[in-house]
Amino acid sequence: MINNTFYSQENHGPYELYDLGDFELEDGGKIPDCKLAYSTYGELNETKDNAIVVPTWFSGTSKDYETYIGEGRALNPTKYFIIAINQIGNGLSTSPHNSPTPSDFPNVRIGDDVRAQYQLITEKFGIKELALVVGASMGAQQTYEWAVRYPDMVNRAAPIAGTAKNTQHDFLFTKTLMEAITSDPGWNEGNYQSNTEVADGLKRHADIWAVMGLSTEFYQQEKWKLFGVETLDEFISGFLQPLFQMMDPNNLLAMAWKWQRGDVSRNTNGNLQEALGRIKAKMFVMPIDEDMFFPPRDCEAEQKLIPNSELRVIYSIAGHFGLFGGEGAYYHDQIDKHLNELLATSVADKVL
Amino acid sequence: MINNTFYSQENHGPYELYDLGDFELEDGGKIPDCKLAYSTYGELNETKDNAIVVPTWFSGTSKDYETYIGEGRALNPTKYFIIAINQIGNGLSTSPHNSPTPSDFPNVRIGDDVRAQYQLITEKFGIKELALVVGASMGAQQTYEWAVRYPDMVNRAAPIAGTAKNTQHDFLFTKTLMEAITSDPGWNEGNYQSNTEVADGLKRHADIWAVMGLSTEFYQQEKWKLFGVETLDEFISGFLQPLFQMMDPNNLLAMAWKWQRGDVSRNTNGNLQEALGRIKAKMFVMPIDEDMFFPPRDCEAEQKLIPNSELRVIYSIAGHFGLFGGEGAYYHDQIDKHLNELLATSVADKVL
Repeated sequence: MINNTFYSQENHGPYELYDLGDFELEDGGKIPDCKLAYSTYGELNETKDNAIVVPTWFSGTSKDYETYIGEGRALNPTKYFIIAINQIGNGLSTSPHNSPTPSDFPNVRIGDDVRAQYQLITEKFGIKELALVVGASMGAQQTYEWAVRYPDMVNRAAPIAGTAKNTQHDFLFTKTLMEAITSDPGWNEGNYQSNTEVADGLKRHADIWAVMGLSTEFYQQEKWKLFGVETLDEFISGFLQPLFQMMDPNNLLAMAWKWQRGDVSRNTNGNLQEALGRIKAKMFVMPIDEDMFFPPRDCEAEQKLIPNSELRVIYSIAGHFGLFGGEGAYYHDQIDKHLNELLATSVADKVL
Repeated sequence: MINNTFYSQENHGPYELYDLGDFELEDGGKIPDCKLAYSTYGELNETKDNAIVVPTWFSGTSKDYETYIGEGRALNPTKYFIIAINQIGNGLSTSPHNSPTPSDFPNVRIGDDVRAQYQLITEKFGIKELALVVGASMGAQQTYEWAVRYPDMVNRAAPIAGTAKNTQHDFLFTKTLMEAITSDPGWNEGNYQSNTEVADGLKRHADIWAVMGLSTEFYQQEKWKLFGVETLDEFISGFLQPLFQMMDPNNLLAMAWKWQRGDVSRNTNGNLQEALGRIKAKMFVMPIDEDMFFPPRDCEAEQKLIPNSELRVIYSIAGHFGLFGGEGAYYHDQIDKHLNELLATSVADKVL
């Protein structure tokens, strides 16, 4: 257990914890008393068919989806019961930093997260079908996994800026993010007392995000204001670097390892076409046009393998970090337009 | 002086050295007995108007241009006198590793390289005009600098996959390349005895190149064979990593620092439009379509400020590393087509 006040109710709440008990992992071993942190919005209706699951992205928490949710939005809590669920390792759910042995946390996979979320959804709430699963980035990986693993349960799905099977390019990118941390002598094979001992590595980690997380055009047009700052220096040293420096290095590494290996074809002995062919949900695949590591063409190649799907490209000069919603209405109105249309499709449109 | 057999006549020759004497630098200080390494192909004609200057890219040497030069090519040594000149810091010309104080090498700028090359061209060969300056990547930066600084001397110019003014995104990318090296305790502020002491940092440096140097589609289509290897692992651990691990860390840092600050508007008090407006050469601006850090749109924005210029996009799934010419005829035929057309333009087409 490493003390890190970043991961607190104050910063990321309100959220609740659900104890899954001893949770068996795909790669072997288990997490004793594995806890999922989640935030809910709205009420579950009597027929229990208005639930929406929203899984989190790399380094993000349920709090990050607050701008996606609201009365005027597609994710409308007066209509839907929205459950934003924190992935294992993100610092709110059971994670290296809050486990008894932070440097020896077991490998967790996207499939583990989705099974854990299924347990929460079914045990705690008695939900048997989901109106929608929607998530961005690693949230998209989990969305795909939900749709493939539980095809009868997921009525609609919208992976934003992410893939069903992680690409080799993306694996290498994630590797550089990990190396930025593990190359810091302060990381010490995960045996540090405080994340501040890994400040240099976390800073380099942020610097790589600065290159790949945005777009070349974001920099050409000097769009720092989308992140509430006035200069490039503030964007890097006042926003990105301190953001990642608050986080726990082992948490980031656990999520990165999982991200690298996201692959729904693990459900079908490596056959991606078969895995994606299993999806029954009506699905909108929503890549971001300027994304440097989940480019639309990679997402489109997968979309074409999904029976009842459409490609809906989101436009954001902020590239992958468009998902932070810094563009406000410009971004969220696009998301809402597509999600409203998706939510309006009849369950009868589902592949039977 | 650090012993490094990578930088040898055997590996990169034949090349010759020209001693510039004490060479004054733009940022102050000087390099005593500064030497430029260069390779020539063909013969200088009597009117001395058939010379072509080809400056090198980051980490590259004059040897890398061998595939660009030949009887069947635009850079035809039976017609032209081609001088491939190694940039200062690249390991063949005067560089940190072959200087008396490797960890204390002065800052060198693109403008210094071009002034040094001018001295070589005029003093050694008595050349007063250049039929063409062509170079890729940092070679393009030098090409732009040549055209802006010596507009009357440069008749034609072709910057391939590079910019006149380095972008902020590119600066940040280069920063991650540098941090990969400087974060290695073996680098020790430049005070190492052998590049092997910085093997980890050089490996991480290569890993970042793997992400940004190619394209997402290169990985999707598994195009390793373009680099003569059969698998992804061979591409990374058998090609990219050992390539950079042979190099000198301080050399790479000197070039990276220079690359970050490439900017022809230093000639015009920061006014890029004025600087590019000075160009008299007929110029073909030749970005690579899949380049992740010198994207065509960045190059096109500059091209539009250049009086007698055209945008000629080169297609390569290898992205920036297309310049290695791994695609053989597919790549070189494109380059030749454009360069042949450019070389066929009359000097009368030059802006007067």
